[in-house]
Amino acid sequence: MPVTPEQQAEIDDLRKAAVPTLRAVAPGMEAHLYKAREVLDHGFVRVIDYMGDDAAICQAARVSYGKGTKSVQNDEGLIRYLMRHWHSTPFEMCEVKLHVKLPVFVARQWIRHRTANVNEYSARYSILDREFYIPRAEDLAAQSVINNQGRGETLTGEEAERVLRYLKDDAGRAYDHYEEMISDEGQQGLARELARMNLPANIYTQWYWKVDLHNLFHFLRLRADSHAQYEIRVYADAICEMVKDWVPAAYGAFEDYRMGGANLSGRQLECIRKMLKGEEVTQETSGMSKGEWREFMGVVG
Amino acid sequence: MPVTPEQQAEIDDLRKAAVPTLRAVAPGMEAHLYKAREVLDHGFVRVIDYMGDDAAICQAARVSYGKGTKSVQNDEGLIRYLMRHWHSTPFEMCEVKLHVKLPVFVARQWIRHRTANVNEYSARYSILDREFYIPRAEDLAAQSVINNQGRGETLTGEEAERVLRYLKDDAGRAYDHYEEMISDEGQQGLARELARMNLPANIYTQWYWKVDLHNLFHFLRLRADSHAQYEIRVYADAICEMVKDWVPAAYGAFEDYRMGGANLSGRQLECIRKMLKGEEVTQETSGMSKGEWREFMGVVG
Amino acid sequence: MPVTPEQQAEIDDLRKAAVPTLRAVAPGMEAHLYKAREVLDHGFVRVIDYMGDDAAICQAARVSYGKGTKSVQNDEGLIRYLMRHWHSTPFEMCEVKLHVKLPVFVARQWIRHRTANVNEYSARYSILDREFYIPRAEDLAAQSVINNQGRGETLTGEEAERVLRYLKDDAGRAYDHYEEMISDEGQQGLARELARMNLPANIYTQWYWKVDLHNLFHFLRLRADSHAQYEIRVYADAICEMVKDWVPAAYGAFEDYRMGGANLSGRQLECIRKMLKGEEVTQETSGMSKGEWREFMGVVG
Amino acid sequence: MPVTPEQQAEIDDLRKAAVPTLRAVAPGMEAHLYKAREVLDHGFVRVIDYMGDDAAICQAARVSYGKGTKSVQNDEGLIRYLMRHWHSTPFEMCEVKLHVKLPVFVARQWIRHRTANVNEYSARYSILDREFYIPRAEDLAAQSVINNQGRGETLTGEEAERVLRYLKDDAGRAYDHYEEMISDEGQQGLARELARMNLPANIYTQWYWKVDLHNLFHFLRLRADSHAQYEIRVYADAICEMVKDWVPAAYGAFEDYRMGGANLSGRQLECIRKMLKGEEVTQETSGMSKGEWREFMGVVG
Repeated sequence: MPVTPEQQAEIDDLRKAAVPTLRAVAPGMEAHLYKAREVLDHGFVRVIDYMGDDAAICQAARVSYGKGTKSVQNDEGLIRYLMRHWHSTPFEMCEVKLHVKLPVFVARQWIRHRTANVNEYSARYSILDREFYIPRAEDLAAQSVINNQGRGETLTGEEAERVLRYLKDDAGRAYDHYEEMISDEGQQGLARELARMNLPANIYTQWYWKVDLHNLFHFLRLRADSHAQYEIRVYADAICEMVKDWVPAAYGAFEDYRMGGANLSGRQLECIRKMLKGEEVTQETSGMSKGEWREFMGVVG
Repeated sequence: MPVTPEQQAEIDDLRKAAVPTLRAVAPGMEAHLYKAREVLDHGFVRVIDYMGDDAAICQAARVSYGKGTKSVQNDEGLIRYLMRHWHSTPFEMCEVKLHVKLPVFVARQWIRHRTANVNEYSARYSILDREFYIPRAEDLAAQSVINNQGRGETLTGEEAERVLRYLKDDAGRAYDHYEEMISDEGQQGLARELARMNLPANIYTQWYWKVDLHNLFHFLRLRADSHAQYEIRVYADAICEMVKDWVPAAYGAFEDYRMGGANLSGRQLECIRKMLKGEEVTQETSGMSKGEWREFMGVVG
Repeated sequence: MPVTPEQQAEIDDLRKAAVPTLRAVAPGMEAHLYKAREVLDHGFVRVIDYMGDDAAICQAARVSYGKGTKSVQNDEGLIRYLMRHWHSTPFEMCEVKLHVKLPVFVARQWIRHRTANVNEYSARYSILDREFYIPRAEDLAAQSVINNQGRGETLTGEEAERVLRYLKDDAGRAYDHYEEMISDEGQQGLARELARMNLPANIYTQWYWKVDLHNLFHFLRLRADSHAQYEIRVYADAICEMVKDWVPAAYGAFEDYRMGGANLSGRQLECIRKMLKGEEVTQETSGMSKGEWREFMGVVG
Repeated sequence: MPVTPEQQAEIDDLRKAAVPTLRAVAPGMEAHLYKAREVLDHGFVRVIDYMGDDAAICQAARVSYGKGTKSVQNDEGLIRYLMRHWHSTPFEMCEVKLHVKLPVFVARQWIRHRTANVNEYSARYSILDREFYIPRAEDLAAQSVINNQGRGETLTGEEAERVLRYLKDDAGRAYDHYEEMISDEGQQGLARELARMNLPANIYTQWYWKVDLHNLFHFLRLRADSHAQYEIRVYADAICEMVKDWVPAAYGAFEDYRMGGANLSGRQLECIRKMLKGEEVTQETSGMSKGEWREFMGVVG
C-alpha cells in the first residue's frame, strides 16, 4: 500500500492550510501538492514544494531592469527559443522538491543523476518496512534477443509463475530474518547497518529529491524514454504529468525539442540532404553501422 | 542610484499581489521579497523567491513516514545536531533566488562558487548602464604590509584624492567611448560584444543567482568573513540579514558552528590539552609556523 | 576471492609496460598502479590512473609566470597554508581514478559523494558474480545503545551463529534463483534488469570512480572517520594509504588539519577561553546540549 | 607577446625531462605538453597534464573483469555507440589540465561552464601585466542587424581607426593609473584588490583549468560553434586541435555526432518525413516560427 490511512490524513491536513504568499504561484502545481501519485505496487511520487513558473523562466532570461531586453515576443516564444538554443540557465531558475518511494534497484539508477539534492531514509538509523516490488504478470519480460540491455517478450506459464514465487518467497524470508536479526528480545540484536545487507534490491526505500527544471528535463529525457527500464520510466511518466501542469509552456517546448526530437549526426544529415534531392542512400553507402542505420530509419521512416 | 522610480513602482506592485499557496511560507522572508536592499553606491540584493523554512529542513532530515525517526527533540535541537555533524543534505532542501546588482570585479569573485545557478545580464545582447563603483573615502585602503592579499590603513590627503579622480575620470571616459563606439548614428556601430571590452571592472552588472541553503552558508562563511574583500563582504552581510529572518534556527546554528567557530588542527588541539593541564606552550614548541601560531592565539587568546 | 589468477596475470602484464612521459610522475603512486589492494572478503581498490603530485598543487596555486607570486616558502609550507585557509582549488588540480569492488550497501553510501565520476558495472547488461560480503565473526556487532546509527558490542554464541547462517543461506538461495530465472535453457529467461532485484545488498558490484584530490579528502574525512560504518571505513583506510604515497605533503596537511583536527563552535571556543583563564565550566553553564558537551570533552579532555 | 624568452626556456626544460610511467600514455598529447599554442595577440593555451586515452574510455565503459561485457566490436565502434546514445560517464574518465592566458571578457564567458576546476591568477595578491587584447582590423565587426547578440560587417575607414585608438589609449591610460595608484614610492599605495577595478575587460588574465572529456566536449560544442563570440571560439578551436591528437576516436565521434550534427525537434522531423514522401512544406504549414524555419532550412537545405 503506497500510503497508510494515517499518512493520508496528514496529507489531507496539509492540503487545507492555504496561506498567502507574495511569490510566484503555479495553480496547476498547487493542485498536485502533497498528494501521493501511486507508482508501481507500493511506490509514489509527491510534490513537496516548488519554486517558479513559466513567467519566472522569462524573467530570469531577461534579468529584470535590463535595457534592450524588453521584448514583444510572448513568453512561449521566448521559452521555445531558449530550449532550441540550449540556453539552459533560465530553466535552472525553477526548482521542485519531490518525496519519492521507490524500489532500491530503481533508486540506484536514479542517483546517477548527480546534479540534484537527495536525502534518503536511513537504514542505519531506522527500520525498513516490509514492502517489496513484485511485478505484475504482464511486466515479467524475457531478456531481449536484440538489445543486450533491454527486454523482449512477456514470460508465460510455469516460467512466469516460478519467477513470481521466487521473488515473493525470497523477499519474505529475507525480511523475516532481517526482523529476527535486529530484534533485541532475548538477545543483543544485530546492528541495523549490518542487518539491512540481507534485504533484496526490490525492497522499497524513500527519499526527498530536489532538482532544478533544466536537470529535471535531462532526467526525464533519459528516463521517460522508451529505452529506459520500465520500472523507472513509470516514475518519470508520473513526474511528466506534474511538470506539464506546473510549467505548461516549458513542458511543451521540452516535448517538441527533446522528447519528440532527435539528435542527428553529420552523416545522417548528409543522407537526408541526398534523399531530399532524390538520391538513393543505403546502409552501405551511408557510412553508418547497422545499428545506427536502423535507428536512423526509425527516425526518418 | 540602485533602483529607479519606475523599478521601485514595479517592486511596489509586486508586493501588493499576495496569493494563497499550500507550500511552506516563511513570514520573515515574505517581508523581504522583491525589496531592493542597497549595497555599495549603486548595488543591491533582492530576494525574488525562496523554497522551504526551518521546518522543511527537519522534515527532509526525517523523511516523512519513516519509522524510528520520530523524535521528541525539537526542531532547533535537530538543526544544531545536523549542522554540528556536517549532515548537509537537509540544508540543501531549502533554496533561494536573488537578484543582485554588483560591480564586475565582485561578480568575478562571486562566480567561483560553482554550485549555484546564474543568469547574468548579457553585454553581448544589451547595453550596460553608466554606473560605476566609486569607493567612499573611508574605504580607500592601502595594500596591507602584513597580509599579501589584504588591506591596511586608509589613504589620506592628496593620494586619496588622486585615486578617486582617476577612478571617476577613467570610468567616465571609457563609458563615453563605449557609447560612441556602439552608436549607429552616421556610422555602422561596433558590435556590443566587442565594445564592452573597453569598460573597467568597477562597472555594475546584474544577475539572478539561485542557490541552496547549504551552499549559501558555505558562500557566507567565506565571504562574510573578516578576511574577505570589503566589497563582497557587504553583499554577504546583506544576505545574512535575510537568511536570519528566513530560517532563524538554521542561521543560529550557522552562526555558532561556522561563523563564530574555528577549525583547529591536531597540533592546535594538542596545545590546548597541554595548556589546560598547565603546561607552557610556545610557538617554537608547538610545531606551528609563525603565521599559524598567530592565528591560533587569535582564537584561544 | 578478490582477484582471479587470470585477472592477476593481466595486472602483472600492465605493470611491466613502463613508457616515457613528460608529465608529472609520482613514484609513490607508480608503485601502487593496477595492484589490487584487498578489502573485506572479496573487495579491492586499485589505482588505474592519477594526475599530478605535490608540486602540481603548488604550481596551480601560483599559476606559472605570475609576477609577485614567486615565493621562497617551500612547497610543504605553501600546502599547509592552503589547507589551513580552505583554499581548495589547488588541491582540485590533482585527480585519481580507482577501480573498486565493493558490496552494494557500501556503494549506496559511497555514491552520495556527488562530485566524482562513476562508471558502474551494469547488471542490466551483464550477469553479476556469486560473491557476497559475509562479515567476520569479530565484525558482527549489536545495535549501539547510545548512538542510534552505530554499533555496540560484538555478538556472541548462538546469536552470532544464526546471523551468519542467515546471511550465507539467504544470499546463496537468492543467487541460485537469480541464475535459474535468467537461464535461457529450456525457457525464455527473465530479463537481467528484472532478475537482479532478487539479490541482496551484500552482493559485490564494481565501478570506476574518478575524483579530484579536494573532493577525495572530503570523502576520506567523512568515511575514514571513526563514526563511519566499518565496511566503508576499510575502503577509505585503504585509499588513505595510497594518497599518502602519492602526495605526501598534502596528505600530511590533511592529517593535521582535517583528520586530526576538530571544528569547534563559538560556544566551545568561549569555554576554552574561560577554562584557560582558570574558570570552571560545566555542561549546564556551557549552553551546550549533553551530546555536544560529551563530544567537546572528547576533544579537549 | 604570449610567452617571454625566460618562460620559453622553462617550457623547453620541461620538455626534456621524460620519465617512465606505467599509466596510459597518449603520444599525440605528449607532443603538445607544455608548449604554448598562441591565441589572439597575447594569449595562449598550454596542456599541463592529461589522464587517459581512447582505450581508457572503453576500459571504463566495460569495467574491467566484468563478465558478459567482453566485446568483439572495436574501440572506435564502441566509442561511437557511447557518443550516439549519450552514455557520458566513460568520457568523464579522461581528464585534461590546461594553462590558459585570455582576456577578462573571454574568461567571464568561459567560467559559466561550472563543471571544471579553476585556479586563476589573483589580482588581489599579484600585479597584472600590461597586456591588452586589441582586435586586428579584420576582426572589428559591427553589431549584427539580424542577430541581436552577433556581429555583422567589418568596420572600415575612420570609424575603425577611432575604435582602435580608443581601445589602445583607454587601456594604456587605465594601466598607467593602475601602476601609479599601487606604487608605494613616496606614498602608501592603494591596495591591489581595489586598484584592479580601474582596468578594462580586455586586459589578460591567466588560469589553470581542469576538466573531464565529457564536459570539455560540451564546452567545445558551444564555444567552437559559429554562433560563439570570435574571441572565445579561437580558444575552443585551439583546444580542438589538441583533443584530436589526444583521443582521435572520441574526437571523431564528437565531430560527427555533436559538431557536425543537429538536434531536430518533433515538428522538424515531421516535416522531413513529409518532404521525403514528396509533400510540400512551408514555414506557414510547418508550425515553426520564422527564425526556427530559417535554422531548419540551413540544416536540411
